Amino acid sequence: MSKPQTEEQAVDSEGDSSLHRRDEEGTQSSHRMLGFSDALLSIIATVMILPVTHTEISPEQFDKSIQKLLATRIAVYLMTFLIVTVAWAAHTRLFQVVGKIDDTLALLNLACMMTITLLPYTFSLMVTFPDVPLGIFLFCVCVIAIGSVQALIVGYAFHFPHLLNPQIQCSPHRAQSRRHILRLVLRGPALCFVAAVFSLFFFPLSYVLMVTVIFLPHISKATTWCKDKLMGHRESPAHSVEPFSIDLHAPLSKERVEAFSDGVYAIVATLLILDICEDNVPDPKDVQEKFSGSLVAALGAYGPQFLAYFGSFATVGLLWFAHHSLFLHVRKATQTMGLLNVLSLAFVGGLPLAYQQTSAFARQPRDELERVRVSCAIIFFASIFQFAIWTAALLRQTETLQPAVRFGGQEHAFMFAKLALYPCASLLAFAATCLLSRFSTAIFHLMQIAVPFAFLLLRLLVRLTLAGLQVLWDLRPEHPQPGQGEPEAQSQLLPAPC
Amino acid sequence: MSKPQTEEQAVDSEGDSSLHRRDEEGTQSSHRMLGFSDALLSIIATVMILPVTHTEISPEQFDKSIQKLLATRIAVYLMTFLIVTVAWAAHTRLFQVVGKIDDTLALLNLACMMTITLLPYTFSLMVTFPDVPLGIFLFCVCVIAIGSVQALIVGYAFHFPHLLNPQIQCSPHRAQSRRHILRLVLRGPALCFVAAVFSLFFFPLSYVLMVTVIFLPHISKATTWCKDKLMGHRESPAHSVEPFSIDLHAPLSKERVEAFSDGVYAIVATLLILDICEDNVPDPKDVQEKFSGSLVAALGAYGPQFLAYFGSFATVGLLWFAHHSLFLHVRKATQTMGLLNVLSLAFVGGLPLAYQQTSAFARQPRDELERVRVSCAIIFFASIFQFAIWTAALLRQTETLQPAVRFGGQEHAFMFAKLALYPCASLLAFAATCLLSRFSTAIFHLMQIAVPFAFLLLRLLVRLTLAGLQVLWDLRPEHPQPGQGEPEAQSQLLPAPC
Repeated sequence: MSKPQTEEQAVDSEGDSSLHRRDEEGTQSSHRMLGFSDALLSIIATVMILPVTHTEISPEQFDKSIQKLLATRIAVYLMTFLIVTVAWAAHTRLFQVVGKIDDTLALLNLACMMTITLLPYTFSLMVTFPDVPLGIFLFCVCVIAIGSVQALIVGYAFHFPHLLNPQIQCSPHRAQSRRHILRLVLRGPALCFVAAVFSLFFFPLSYVLMVTVIFLPHISKATTWCKDKLMGHRESPAHSVEPFSIDLHAPLSKERVEAFSDGVYAIVATLLILDICEDNVPDPKDVQEKFSGSLVAALGAYGPQFLAYFGSFATVGLLWFAHHSLFLHVRKATQTMGLLNVLSLAFVGGLPLAYQQTSAFARQPRDELERVRVSCAIIFFASIFQFAIWTAALLRQTETLQPAVRFGGQEHAFMFAKLALYPCASLLAFAATCLLSRFSTAIFHLMQIAVPFAFLLLRLLVRLTLAGLQVLWDLRPEHPQPGQGEPEAQSQLLPAPC
Repeated sequence: MSKPQTEEQAVDSEGDSSLHRRDEEGTQSSHRMLGFSDALLSIIATVMILPVTHTEISPEQFDKSIQKLLATRIAVYLMTFLIVTVAWAAHTRLFQVVGKIDDTLALLNLACMMTITLLPYTFSLMVTFPDVPLGIFLFCVCVIAIGSVQALIVGYAFHFPHLLNPQIQCSPHRAQSRRHILRLVLRGPALCFVAAVFSLFFFPLSYVLMVTVIFLPHISKATTWCKDKLMGHRESPAHSVEPFSIDLHAPLSKERVEAFSDGVYAIVATLLILDICEDNVPDPKDVQEKFSGSLVAALGAYGPQFLAYFGSFATVGLLWFAHHSLFLHVRKATQTMGLLNVLSLAFVGGLPLAYQQTSAFARQPRDELERVRVSCAIIFFASIFQFAIWTAALLRQTETLQPAVRFGGQEHAFMFAKLALYPCASLLAFAATCLLSRFSTAIFHLMQIAVPFAFLLLRLLVRLTLAGLQVLWDLRPEHPQPGQGEPEAQSQLLPAPC
């Protein structure tokens, strides 16, 4: 929290904090290390869009070979993103078991991060040389290295039990928890070891095994679910003792889901301005020759790019805003919500591509229809997966959501409107480009500029609707709704107009 | 924290949390929004090194004009970094006063962020066209826009006082606090308005005013300090009532300093691998022609680059580790510490330049002496400013540091060793290159690879020294040291060897 500590509080807490410190010398809260890891992983996952956006496409060249190159690069981007999120999820699970860190664990975590940063490189090798098994071999070596470092972390933490989560620390089933988390951490690397061996003589099987590693958590979940359905609920005793930490299907730490998402949104917003700074500073010679020394005229030529920048930043910013609003009311993130969130983020990471596509209109007005549609599709998928997170949460609402946004809750309608705005707007824009294909660019820019205002109007609209509903409700006092609360609370919920 | 909430806890807290929510409907903790802003600002500040590192330098070209271009770009980078940190510091101050947010404030903050992302662009314009006043004019317009949005935030928050920090909310001097924070927020923009006016007819004065904006907080601090010295301690009554929030010289929020620093370290670590992924994936044609189809041989040619990558990642990671260790023991960050931290981060942001310089050895062995020296200098300055943070903290140790690392504290020696390692190593490497200039690359790589091991050995060394000291101390029991604590506590502090 950003509340500053006052002088007196600091002095008051001195006795306490020094006592506290002596209690657990050498150990530290893992909070900041996890924040750093989340930032690093989210940036690694997202910057892989850069090779895609930096693919030079001149209108003459826009043929099959470029399309194939672009498609390959987008595939690389999506795969890398998913691989890094799998690594992130394993890291989250691990540090749900390991509650505190010391210097050695911090250094081991850095080693783990360094190995993870190499994954995108091995993946690039794999895609550039699809027929050479070396890429797959190196990829598997990386995964095995990550697994080894994580196993080392587990071993170290269980050797010094004061580093563990207090609930595991005091549990009589500690050895069992250790086996369980070790199995969780080493499952992927074991598969990769087999894949590495196969890569030496029959590498197509390695690809299959590698994809298995990526989808392993979800396959395993589906398997368990089927098994449960077939054989009835037959859980191992460990589950009932420590249901929160070593259960594969336990919710992810909500804070870390937020931190990872924030990292992705922040880097995407930044990549946009980076492109502006690199490409849209006019060349002094050009200004002299083409615009007779007038910088204002030269900048005027970049007008459409700036419009595209404002539109794209607003899109990223408002998608973050919707995500932020949703997760304020989320209590815990189930694994399904985590998967949907990752898919949404993968498309958010594609937004720089949308920006680059739309800003290219200024230079080449051809093919703009396809570009606008690609952009609309990216925005649509990014926002519809956000909406899906909410839908998934509503299916298990008592467990996952705060009362205010559940069915019948005070903010349910408002949240629905917030999350439905971008899917509707992008779908509408897509449909409009089909009918009025000549004005597709104008329609797209209009959509990007109008949605922020829609967000502001939305508040008024939902407010009016809610007020109308409340009037209707007051006329029928024989049906008191449990989640509705007192009318004062509801009017407090809506900020007064300023 | 990453502690997962168990099912029962969630159900138990339901009644509480819904009560709590009803209490402050529509307002939200600002925690996540500030995290997002910190991530965005740190990335914006750091990615401006990219135009510097992407300056193409072939050995034939390395003449005066390239050196001048590089120097200009480094100056742009440093200035942009400082400007963004000033904006960050103002943002921190503002949200120390505004304790909670609602949707409107979140949207206003997004608008503020968008304006801040435009600062690097206007700065690029200013440097590319030093003789045209338009860059300065646009820069001033940006600063004025940022100030206006921040003033709007202040006005909105004081209009709905439940959004304010509780201590200001209950204070009788609220109107005074409002004037104070408004003055703080609008001081820079007012100066920029004057600069914008001057830019139309006499722009050198605008440059002076603009630099004033950047150093205003520190100038103002120095002025107040001098005034205090000259006239004695004559503070306004507001200072005694709310000493923590509206005082210019109040400590910065430690959590936000950490979040901003983490963002910088994370993006720097990522830029390194990004370069690897873009430049070091061999071209399939080259592999066929030059290496007769052997991908292993082709990758072998990049060996030195990978060595440089490992060295650079280790440097970034361990500088983060030192920063992390230091701030674990910091209680509050004074303004001086904040300034030193920002300077250290500016050099950390320069590390991709060091990486690019050292990895270029593989291609052109000429000029390597200068490159190694530049790299050593960057690492030296990044680490010596970290050391300076500690020195500054020690000067006011009862206020700023936890007891364990103060003079005579249990971890004082260990912290000293941790922070002194990189300055010493880089200085040593620099000196060695002067004596053995032929082996400069080898010396530099040796330094980068050796320091991680030194960090591990350091623990043993300091442990031995401490044990030796303790033996000496036990021989003289007539001098009990207050900070030393029981011997058990001290042996607990040192993790047993595994």
